[in-house]
Amino acid sequence: MALPHATSGQLIDIRPLGTRIAASTSNALFKTPQLELMRLVLPRGKGMPEHSVHGPVTIQCIEGAIELHAHQTTQTVRAGELVYLAGGEPHALQALEDSSVLLTILLPH
Amino acid sequence: MALPHATSGQLIDIRPLGTRIAASTSNALFKTPQLELMRLVLPRGKGMPEHSVHGPVTIQCIEGAIELHAHQTTQTVRAGELVYLAGGEPHALQALEDSSVLLTILLPH
Repeated sequence: MALPHATSGQLIDIRPLGTRIAASTSNALFKTPQLELMRLVLPRGKGMPEHSVHGPVTIQCIEGAIELHAHQTTQTVRAGELVYLAGGEPHALQALEDSSVLLTILLPH
Repeated sequence: MALPHATSGQLIDIRPLGTRIAASTSNALFKTPQLELMRLVLPRGKGMPEHSVHGPVTIQCIEGAIELHAHQTTQTVRAGELVYLAGGEPHALQALEDSSVLLTILLPH
């Protein structure tokens, strides 16, 4: 079940899910007109096909490891690593292990 | 020494500094016209006095624990926890332990 969206000042738990990852699903953490945060839960082998979004994003690996394809390069993003992507940059993700990822998405004005 | 700012698609290490924290200083991770990321390194007892910024921010505790005062409330933000603050919301931080914090700052247009 999705949690209610957080509001300004509210504590959000983004610690690794650990053994709970298999029973977890992606969920929106909050969304305002300017900013959206979500935790993607990607079982090994799952991902997102190539796409782009209007605004800049950051992709932070919380646990596991994902393969990120962007800027004509494929690289592995491991727990504790983060990548910033400029708005409009096409990218694709695939989980190399059971992973969770914090996405921070700037929304267009 | 500050690292050069990251560019779109470049991997940024935001793992806990651990024992290196005492010899580390705050540093900007990247800055674009829309978005700024920095890692604040706050030895125990240090912090930031009350201030506000134009745009929304997220404050993510990477290691240690900080006391965050905002919205007339003081709360402890521990490693793996994150708080979103709406633009203009006055807030102050104080480190309860040697801590590092990821700040994501949306810049005004």
